Formats: sequence, structure tokens, C-alpha cells
Amino acid sequence: MNKQFRQDLFEQAKAWVLEAGEEIKNKIDDPGSIETKSNSNDLVTEMDKNTEQFFLKKIKETYPEHLLFGEEGFGDVLNDLKGTVWIVDPIDGTMNFVHQKRNFAISVGVYHDGVGEIGLIYNVMEGQLYTAIRGEGAYKNDEKLPLLNESRPLHQSILALNTTWLLPENPYVDHKGMQELVKEIRSTRSYGSAALEFALVAEGLLDGYLTMTLMPWDIAGGIIILKEVGGVVTRADGGEVDMLEKTTILACRSNIHEQIIEDYVTLKN
Amino acid sequence: MNKQFRQDLFEQAKAWVLEAGEEIKNKIDDPGSIETKSNSNDLVTEMDKNTEQFFLKKIKETYPEHLLFGEEGFGDVLNDLKGTVWIVDPIDGTMNFVHQKRNFAISVGVYHDGVGEIGLIYNVMEGQLYTAIRGEGAYKNDEKLPLLNESRPLHQSILALNTTWLLPENPYVDHKGMQELVKEIRSTRSYGSAALEFALVAEGLLDGYLTMTLMPWDIAGGIIILKEVGGVVTRADGGEVDMLEKTTILACRSNIHEQIIEDYVTLKN
Repeated sequence: MNKQFRQDLFEQAKAWVLEAGEEIKNKIDDPGSIETKSNSNDLVTEMDKNTEQFFLKKIKETYPEHLLFGEEGFGDVLNDLKGTVWIVDPIDGTMNFVHQKRNFAISVGVYHDGVGEIGLIYNVMEGQLYTAIRGEGAYKNDEKLPLLNESRPLHQSILALNTTWLLPENPYVDHKGMQELVKEIRSTRSYGSAALEFALVAEGLLDGYLTMTLMPWDIAGGIIILKEVGGVVTRADGGEVDMLEKTTILACRSNIHEQIIEDYVTLKN
Repeated sequence: MNKQFRQDLFEQAKAWVLEAGEEIKNKIDDPGSIETKSNSNDLVTEMDKNTEQFFLKKIKETYPEHLLFGEEGFGDVLNDLKGTVWIVDPIDGTMNFVHQKRNFAISVGVYHDGVGEIGLIYNVMEGQLYTAIRGEGAYKNDEKLPLLNESRPLHQSILALNTTWLLPENPYVDHKGMQELVKEIRSTRSYGSAALEFALVAEGLLDGYLTMTLMPWDIAGGIIILKEVGGVVTRADGGEVDMLEKTTILACRSNIHEQIIEDYVTLKN
């Protein structure tokens, strides 16, 4: 991707993310905006759908050859990542959006022939915009984020890890390894938005994030941002993440990555 | 306690909390302020100690007959809650303070003859001040908090619950009940500050907070604030909280309180 075009694309993506965020803020107290599927924990709101359609319209008008791969399914069906693909989660952390009206994010990753070029995560209600262009560093509200500190050992680390992965019946990971990990580290946190958990790792506020079921749109922006500060992102078994499939994720500082995988993660399939 | 005196005391406490918060903000990037005990997860910083001493000095100068019961131990040794007692956590969420430089709070509860009269929780870095005077409602930054919604069933609830309580070897609670609780509810969160978790329950952003080891200063402000919006706070076995001792805590909306205790909590001693 041409560098000047990429820079222009970044500015355009950023403008749309901020515009979409403004719309969400304006409508967040409108009861219709947070109606949910009845009797389901798989929350989807009107706002999720409207925001994805906003991106779809903007992208198709401005870059008709670009593809959109998004959570709500209004975009394109992809078999591969050829060309330029916008991977968009209009509201990452929908449960927080519904219950808290904060702690959710718009997540955008722009991939070109499979390579992540531009990442944006916008914590809408806090007004915190995390961005990166591949090879040019990561930023929070236009302030450059430093490279991650790689001297802190695992036993002094704080990981984002949900209680779900300590349940014996979870179908993804051996819960005993997760129990051992919780005992080894300093503490766990859980914020309910994968994009924001990636952003917190990129900012150095968490040392890592381990989880078992994410979709490409949950992580597309975060991967690009986190790599720019020296973070490592793989599947929880250390394999390469497939940006077209549901995936496990370990996103962390490089010095604790191998130890977590070797000593604590045993996937069930 | 005389109503006018209590109002004046509230204004004074609020002014001190804001002043202490300003000092923390000013010094948060000073490396000396976050030195920690070596080789320990029991983090205590210079800032914890200085902030408690700030409150001690102010209180003893202005109200020499009042007592201070605080985390860092510079205050009074109490055998009971007779008289007027300020129960202070200078920095609740010290681990967040050290690792994140945010997501911590100053917590103050003023008790008179054992009754919680004034509560303050100050999320220093976000500038969010939660306050209450007994019988007069709870506020966030001077905006009155509504009474908690009591119609949401447990299976749609989000609880603050740390992974620690799902470990079989935790000495406090049967982990199988905690696993069942995680399966029943919609999701868990963990933010790393008891005071802020109380504040989030009071604001209705979390439906409850269940934890096994807190000290009076972690909860003294939060209890007063949460009760003012209709929340219930007991030990995790439903018993009354002893404000002089380490305690378990269930702080939640009233409609899910009994169900959590009856169906999911089995304490080990």
C-alpha cells in the first residue's frame, strides 16, 4: 500500500470513527438505541447495526473496491484477505454498552493483502482514541505510546482473564492450567471489551490478555496497535491468528508470552 | 449527630478528599511516589502513607475529638466505633495505582456511634466523586444517583467477582458455588478497587460485588453511598458487616441478594 494513500486512508478512517462515536454519544440516552434481543445474552442493539451501516456506506461510497468485514454482517462475505479489507466492530463490548453506557469501543483494522496497516480503537465515552499505522508507532489521543516494559516477570503481572476460563466445563481450555496461572500472577482484571483490553495492554496498564473466543473484528484494530509497542499477539497455543475465523488469543508483553503458553495453557481441541 | 454539623463536616471532608486527590495527581509521575515493598504483592506506596497522614493531620487539627481508622495504621487503634470515627483508605486499589496510575480511589466513611453518616469515594484520575449523607441520597459529581433498578433477574446480572474465588484452594468460599454463580449470571467484571466496585454498583453499572477479604476502610465510604440508592450490603453469608474486622462482602441490588447467598455462597469457616 502506497504510503501517502495509507496516510490519507488513516485520516479518513479516524474521521469516520470520531463521527460514529459522536453519533453514539448523542443517542446513548435514547431508549430505542439499546433495545436488545429478548431472552438472550447475545446482545445486539440498534446502535451496533446503525454504526456498522454507517461504516459500510462511507467505505463503499469513498473506496468502492474496499471490502468490509463486520460483526453485524452487513458487509462482505470473505474467503480471504486479498485487497483492502476494513474489519470493523461497530460496538465492541455491547454488554457494557447496554448495562453501563460506557466501557465500550469502536474497533477498526484496515488490512491490505492480509497485512494489518491501520488500527483504531475508540473508547467512545471516555474520549480515548488509540491509533496505529504499521511501522509508525502507536498513539493515544495523538500522544505516542512508549514501547512496553519487558522486565516485569510473570509473577508480578496483571492479566485480563475472565472467570469463564476457570470453569471446568468451558469447552476451550483446561481450567486447571488457568487456576495455576491465577495463582502465579499478581492479579486478574476483566473489563468486558476485547478492544479496550488490547488497548490497556498496549498502554502498559495490563501485562497481557488471555481469552478463548474472539472474532476477527474484536481484535483487528488491537493487533495492529499492540504490535507497534512491541507486544505479541498469537492464538492461545502460540499459533498465528487467522483473521477470518473465531480464535483464542494471548496478547501480551513479549517476555511473558512463551511462559504462559508453555506452562499454563492446554487447549481442549 | 446534629444536621448542620453533619453538613459542615461533609463539606470539610469533601474539600480534603479533593485536596488529597489534587496532590496525588500532581505527584503521580514522580517515581518516588510509587516505590513499593520489595518482593511483595502487598503493595504500599509513599503516596498511600502521605495521603493518610494528610487526613490525620487535618482531622486532628480541626476535630481533635474525632478518631481516624485507616489502612496505613497512622491513626487510632479502635476497640469500638463510639464517637465520631473517620474510616479512611488513602488509596484503594494500590495495585492499580502502581501498575496503571489510574482506577484507584480515595475512600472515606464518617461514622458516628457506629452509624455511617457520610461517605465519599473519589476516583482521582477520572475526576469522579461519589458522595452520600445518610438519608439524603447519593451523588456523583453533585448529580443525584437514581434508586437502583430492582427488576433485573440474577441471570441477566453482571457481578464484580475476581478469579481468585474460583480457585479450589481459596480459604474463604467453596469454589464450586462460585462456578455455579458464574454460569448463572450474564458476566463478571473485575476492576481491582473495592471502593470503585461499590461505586459502580451504586451507579447501577454493576448489579453486585462479591468478595471474600476486605477491610473496613475498603468499604466504609461505599456502604453509606450504596445504601442511599437502595443497595444491600452484608457479609457474604448475609450477616451484618463488622466495621472493625476483616470481612466478606456481598454488595448488590436488593432483589438478587438473598438468591446469591442461598444458592451460591458456602463459606469455608
